[in-house]
Amino acid sequence: MLQTLRTEVYEANLELVRRGLVIYTFGNASAVSPEERLIVIKPSGVPYDQMRPGDMVITDLDGRVVEGSLRPSSDLPTHAALYCAFPSIGGIAHTHSRHATAWAQACREIPCLGTTHADYFCGSIPVTEALSPNEIESDYEANTGAAIIRLLQGRDPLGCPAALVAGHAPFFWGKSVTDAVHTAVIVEELAAMAWQAMTINPSVQPLSSALRDKHYFRKHGPKAYYGQK
Amino acid sequence: MLQTLRTEVYEANLELVRRGLVIYTFGNASAVSPEERLIVIKPSGVPYDQMRPGDMVITDLDGRVVEGSLRPSSDLPTHAALYCAFPSIGGIAHTHSRHATAWAQACREIPCLGTTHADYFCGSIPVTEALSPNEIESDYEANTGAAIIRLLQGRDPLGCPAALVAGHAPFFWGKSVTDAVHTAVIVEELAAMAWQAMTINPSVQPLSSALRDKHYFRKHGPKAYYGQK
Amino acid sequence: MLQTLRTEVYEANLELVRRGLVIYTFGNASAVSPEERLIVIKPSGVPYDQMRPGDMVITDLDGRVVEGSLRPSSDLPTHAALYCAFPSIGGIAHTHSRHATAWAQACREIPCLGTTHADYFCGSIPVTEALSPNEIESDYEANTGAAIIRLLQGRDPLGCPAALVAGHAPFFWGKSVTDAVHTAVIVEELAAMAWQAMTINPSVQPLSSALRDKHYFRKHGPKAYYGQK
Amino acid sequence: MLQTLRTEVYEANLELVRRGLVIYTFGNASAVSPEERLIVIKPSGVPYDQMRPGDMVITDLDGRVVEGSLRPSSDLPTHAALYCAFPSIGGIAHTHSRHATAWAQACREIPCLGTTHADYFCGSIPVTEALSPNEIESDYEANTGAAIIRLLQGRDPLGCPAALVAGHAPFFWGKSVTDAVHTAVIVEELAAMAWQAMTINPSVQPLSSALRDKHYFRKHGPKAYYGQK
Repeated sequence: MLQTLRTEVYEANLELVRRGLVIYTFGNASAVSPEERLIVIKPSGVPYDQMRPGDMVITDLDGRVVEGSLRPSSDLPTHAALYCAFPSIGGIAHTHSRHATAWAQACREIPCLGTTHADYFCGSIPVTEALSPNEIESDYEANTGAAIIRLLQGRDPLGCPAALVAGHAPFFWGKSVTDAVHTAVIVEELAAMAWQAMTINPSVQPLSSALRDKHYFRKHGPKAYYGQK
Repeated sequence: MLQTLRTEVYEANLELVRRGLVIYTFGNASAVSPEERLIVIKPSGVPYDQMRPGDMVITDLDGRVVEGSLRPSSDLPTHAALYCAFPSIGGIAHTHSRHATAWAQACREIPCLGTTHADYFCGSIPVTEALSPNEIESDYEANTGAAIIRLLQGRDPLGCPAALVAGHAPFFWGKSVTDAVHTAVIVEELAAMAWQAMTINPSVQPLSSALRDKHYFRKHGPKAYYGQK
Repeated sequence: MLQTLRTEVYEANLELVRRGLVIYTFGNASAVSPEERLIVIKPSGVPYDQMRPGDMVITDLDGRVVEGSLRPSSDLPTHAALYCAFPSIGGIAHTHSRHATAWAQACREIPCLGTTHADYFCGSIPVTEALSPNEIESDYEANTGAAIIRLLQGRDPLGCPAALVAGHAPFFWGKSVTDAVHTAVIVEELAAMAWQAMTINPSVQPLSSALRDKHYFRKHGPKAYYGQK
Repeated sequence: MLQTLRTEVYEANLELVRRGLVIYTFGNASAVSPEERLIVIKPSGVPYDQMRPGDMVITDLDGRVVEGSLRPSSDLPTHAALYCAFPSIGGIAHTHSRHATAWAQACREIPCLGTTHADYFCGSIPVTEALSPNEIESDYEANTGAAIIRLLQGRDPLGCPAALVAGHAPFFWGKSVTDAVHTAVIVEELAAMAWQAMTINPSVQPLSSALRDKHYFRKHGPKAYYGQK
């Protein structure tokens, strides 16, 4: 069932490790099948070097296991909430990678300080509000998804393919799980560069809207002219 | 004698090197056998690439060598003190890994700034008081253990599996030496993220107790729901 | 056509990846042929592990493709502007490498704080003025080149083989593309050291002109005595 | 001639590269033969991957080449000055490694903030005064040695096996060139930890003399009890 997607999700999880974004079992990646609307996600707490494509868990959008003998990632309700709210996305990744997580812990959005950032995000990478004690105590993972959804309200999620959860860590998404992992790699680099730029010049300002838009739309939308298409 | 434990201790010491936590002979790891209450520990100052499982030294809880032709790690009295005070622990690791040691040198506890931290520690990673000149001059290594024991007074040591020794470096422990090394890897990452988060937002606050407890108890205790158990 | 230069450009692009200066398709390198004045440049957005020497694109100095079926790097007009203005240079590299880009994002020149720097640059690594909205909106890449050219006005470009584009990233050049990549590696290291030196001593001063000149001219010009020549 | 020492110097130079302390041709290492008092040193500006043991240059203490067809490292007069002033040392290494060089560029000694440091240095790693323009303009490299010698005045050089040259970079020495390289690796780590400790706690104090001496003399002198001797 969903063999191709299962393999893509498996490979995406391994790529997080290879890129140095995940140690032990800190992260997870999932995809949703476009027709059946089934989620394929990493099992919870299984060491990456023992994981096989067949260990991926398949669930419905309510988080009920449809196939697989292992328990799904404990962050599944966050993934499910995002898939329900954002029908245009096909994959999600979540890491506790060092630099992006430092910004999440600092409860600060990552400002758009350079064209590297603007090539991927037309503005800051936003950070959620803190969850209330009630939201934490019941349905915590689903409420984490809800906080991200509130943050993105009124925006195209593919136009802002990542968010920081305050005090926690980043989530990334995209048309596919492969794209989500690609964004995870990029954001880790953006987070490192923004941190260093801020310590070099504490009064550094975000990029002008002209330069930000130039770079963003050089790669996105109908007037894009980067790459081979 | 204690072949299995000897191999586990040997492997744990090598894992510290593979994970980049130890250069040259800076660190050490040990285990205690549950029945005989014998300590298996790395020999002192032997290069890791020449070390063999048979080089591990076996001592009693008073630090007397029971088996082995090499001298045990000079930190043995610290390990022994912890095994005597904390009967629930089965292994100890000690490193001078960069980020955690920087916090120890700064004489600052590592605050719980994020869920990555709260997945392992339900609060700060504490730092000891400075030893007095008397404590340094006689029985220094045992007194280092005593300072850690005072710091943990009234707490379950498995609920706080690491401490920073002020001006020195971190110690880690757990049910097994493998667990202690796992914690060493995690704490190094937590130390790096906390350092960066503090420089991004100098007034960053510790995680709310609600979020901290949520993450800690998601992985620990009777209501845990992370992983495959 | 231009097989040797094509291979050198291909290898230079791969060297940027091997040296950790480029992830995904963030950078580019090119060379100009001394006689035909043709530019050999990386294609736009092609993954490095799929790229072959034959994928390099050959254009004239106006940026018109002379040979090659792929689109050239979108930064080609910047390269072309530099080749036109600086006839003495034979190669250009562009990266978004972490440390140098952090300085560009901070809109700060990299001061000459040590002899490592003075071995390569007889002064700061300068940073451009911000482009105006007009310059961004039309002929952006050519105007980026123009900003670098203005910055170097009246100087020998081989005496200052790099510049930071404000809010963007560094460009490097040299007698050959191999030299330009060498400079990219050096500047990344200089940027990291200057950042750390500034945080250790916020009032750190640039090197005295005596020490700066000593090191620069130990390696450059008629009185050089470094190396085997 | 001096085949064993030649090979040891060659290996020491390669070890600087393997340990990540040297890129391109930034560093050098040498040894002095105890009887003939001849210096074996790396040639100037030869890429490490093309260097062979036979390329090492042999000179007398006045820097005159005795054997070898290549030019010796341009820093030879610094090495020679140290060998003349410090008869107890047998080897020297010089790097521009990132963290130690940042301290040298900041013109700040590396304070003894922890036991890792005190295991090797019984106090700060000192930094030289700036050279005068006259000292820079004539006999620069020999005067660099003289500045280090002044800094160590009245001390056993083996008790302080490294110094930072202000605005330049660190020099390391020891009984052998292998020891000098070992110290280079350690100091790079100490420099990184001290930098981070200072940013975590800007008012961090050096280790108490009691703890500093305890660790230093645990490894050095007649009462040492670290290791297998």
